[in-house]
Amino acid sequence: MAELKNDRFLRALMREPVDCTPVWMMRQAGRYLPEYRETRSQAGDFMSLCKNPKLACEVTLQPLERYDLDAAILFSDILTIPDAMGLGLYFEAGEGPRFKKVVRTADDVAALPVPDAAVDLDYVMAAVREIRSALMGRVPLIGFSGSPWTLATYMVEGGSSKDFRHIKEMMYARPEVMHALLGKLADAVTVYLNEQIRAGAQAVQIFDTWGGALSGPMYAEFSLAYMKRIVSGLIRENDGRRVPVILFTKNGGQWLETMVEAGADALGLDWTTEIGDARRRVGDRVALQGNMDPSVLYAPADRIRAEVSRILESFGPGNGHVFNLGHGIHQFVDPEQAGVFVEAVHELSVPYHK
Amino acid sequence: MAELKNDRFLRALMREPVDCTPVWMMRQAGRYLPEYRETRSQAGDFMSLCKNPKLACEVTLQPLERYDLDAAILFSDILTIPDAMGLGLYFEAGEGPRFKKVVRTADDVAALPVPDAAVDLDYVMAAVREIRSALMGRVPLIGFSGSPWTLATYMVEGGSSKDFRHIKEMMYARPEVMHALLGKLADAVTVYLNEQIRAGAQAVQIFDTWGGALSGPMYAEFSLAYMKRIVSGLIRENDGRRVPVILFTKNGGQWLETMVEAGADALGLDWTTEIGDARRRVGDRVALQGNMDPSVLYAPADRIRAEVSRILESFGPGNGHVFNLGHGIHQFVDPEQAGVFVEAVHELSVPYHK
Repeated sequence: MAELKNDRFLRALMREPVDCTPVWMMRQAGRYLPEYRETRSQAGDFMSLCKNPKLACEVTLQPLERYDLDAAILFSDILTIPDAMGLGLYFEAGEGPRFKKVVRTADDVAALPVPDAAVDLDYVMAAVREIRSALMGRVPLIGFSGSPWTLATYMVEGGSSKDFRHIKEMMYARPEVMHALLGKLADAVTVYLNEQIRAGAQAVQIFDTWGGALSGPMYAEFSLAYMKRIVSGLIRENDGRRVPVILFTKNGGQWLETMVEAGADALGLDWTTEIGDARRRVGDRVALQGNMDPSVLYAPADRIRAEVSRILESFGPGNGHVFNLGHGIHQFVDPEQAGVFVEAVHELSVPYHK
Repeated sequence: MAELKNDRFLRALMREPVDCTPVWMMRQAGRYLPEYRETRSQAGDFMSLCKNPKLACEVTLQPLERYDLDAAILFSDILTIPDAMGLGLYFEAGEGPRFKKVVRTADDVAALPVPDAAVDLDYVMAAVREIRSALMGRVPLIGFSGSPWTLATYMVEGGSSKDFRHIKEMMYARPEVMHALLGKLADAVTVYLNEQIRAGAQAVQIFDTWGGALSGPMYAEFSLAYMKRIVSGLIRENDGRRVPVILFTKNGGQWLETMVEAGADALGLDWTTEIGDARRRVGDRVALQGNMDPSVLYAPADRIRAEVSRILESFGPGNGHVFNLGHGIHQFVDPEQAGVFVEAVHELSVPYHK
């Protein structure tokens, strides 16, 4: 493998000194880029794009051609594991992800296979290898997975949900079934992320999109405990270098102290949490990633720069900050404004690293 | 007006001693009740039910016939004000509220009238009077409104939203337009709530359903500041008794300390915040209302009782707790389970008030 030319991102995740704050954007390869829409129209539907390693590599690299980003992230979907379990993932226009089969009973859970990631998700590993090769050491590649709780919400509800009726009924009324499902998913995610690391992922992020729908005690028992189990089972070194792990629970800002105990190197923050407060709460135990409201990118350049500046000041001087949006970049953002954002982070952060 | 027979709710909001913890449920008059569905089918659509004071009174009282609730809440919608401003509120099946006209520009904002609540929203005041008369002092009646920020999200987006694209663009790129709209709405809400109080509302709640979509500084500037302005303009006494004000920002658990400064008597909590932590943070400055996950009502009786018990213990002994769900009761809940909940609160809270 080519030597890594820009390791700001990995260094910041390990709270090591950097020359300026590294930055990437969740969903940086996405619909806001005309070149992405072009490639996607070639591929057909969204999953066909995910399952084509050559095209997945192409879209992964597109934002790096436009912006001076400090990391690439594997182009894939968070729901590849339940798809590999045979639930039949598909996307309806404007409807988000759906599954042909749902998981509602103890028998449904017992019947679910734990996928052999190297075989059943080989298209993901092929994409990781293809991207690593194409990157030629330019920046590190992030692998990822959905958290067990988040995967389970889609599997039990059959798609996106507003009130999580079925999974919360399972959690409160039949906790043993819920735990059986989450245990299986934790095993599957561990195997999946380790396979991504073997294929070349240099850091991994666990996306817990729906952990914030839980109460504190339920979050600890049904989401965090399983992420902790995954983290403890991960390969943490590759090519002689630490593979950092990032946990991101959207709307999890109230539970940072307990999230630290999961053993990840960094926590992702959405924009509802003040990053300076978060830093005081977690101390030097983890790095922090985030957390500009992606909607700031609808504003003019000076407003974007002011918000970047505010967040840098809130975090303050010193190590352990990876700049990001607090959620995926929106599809209607002007790509120019994303460029303003990335440039502002690099330029305005220099004084904080002297 | 008939003398108030059960004032537990009003006493708890003022942090005065009570014999047991009072309880009501957000959206307690709603689709989970077969008798509600029956009345609604008579009325036709949802807004026709809101606009018919006799039927609005009937559904307001329905849950009180089933359960030993300590408060009634006016049956209405949070979007009556923008409807009275001429935006044309309607509901599409499964789609939530929609407006025929949207508010996007400075001219749109300037053209909006501030409704004369006594005239333009007379159907609401008629319902308040009808309910007060029918209650015969059994329990207090809560009036309510959406917060300016929450009303604005629907007015600018044209309905429900996932990412608040248009209103956040307005907020970040054209803050002066956003402030003009929110100022007008704050005036309208103040007049509206005061008119409800004059008509007989004995407490009022401001529902800030979408304040939690903001960052801390934006919440303070664009949501909380306007709720504070409303609170400072409210009539706080009626029939020689204090009219308490409750602020409820969903997903606002990180900002309780600043919310206290708005001058309300109580803060509503959703279930993501531990009520014991919240109590330590707000001290004796406000009462707290909440905060069981409404999905617990999908569980068997013993699980519901265990969760009620856990929340009572978390709050601890002493005054200033109104028990509630952390959000509206879901439509698929079995009415029996709501009964288990209400009974459990009264029974299990007695030791905390000795």
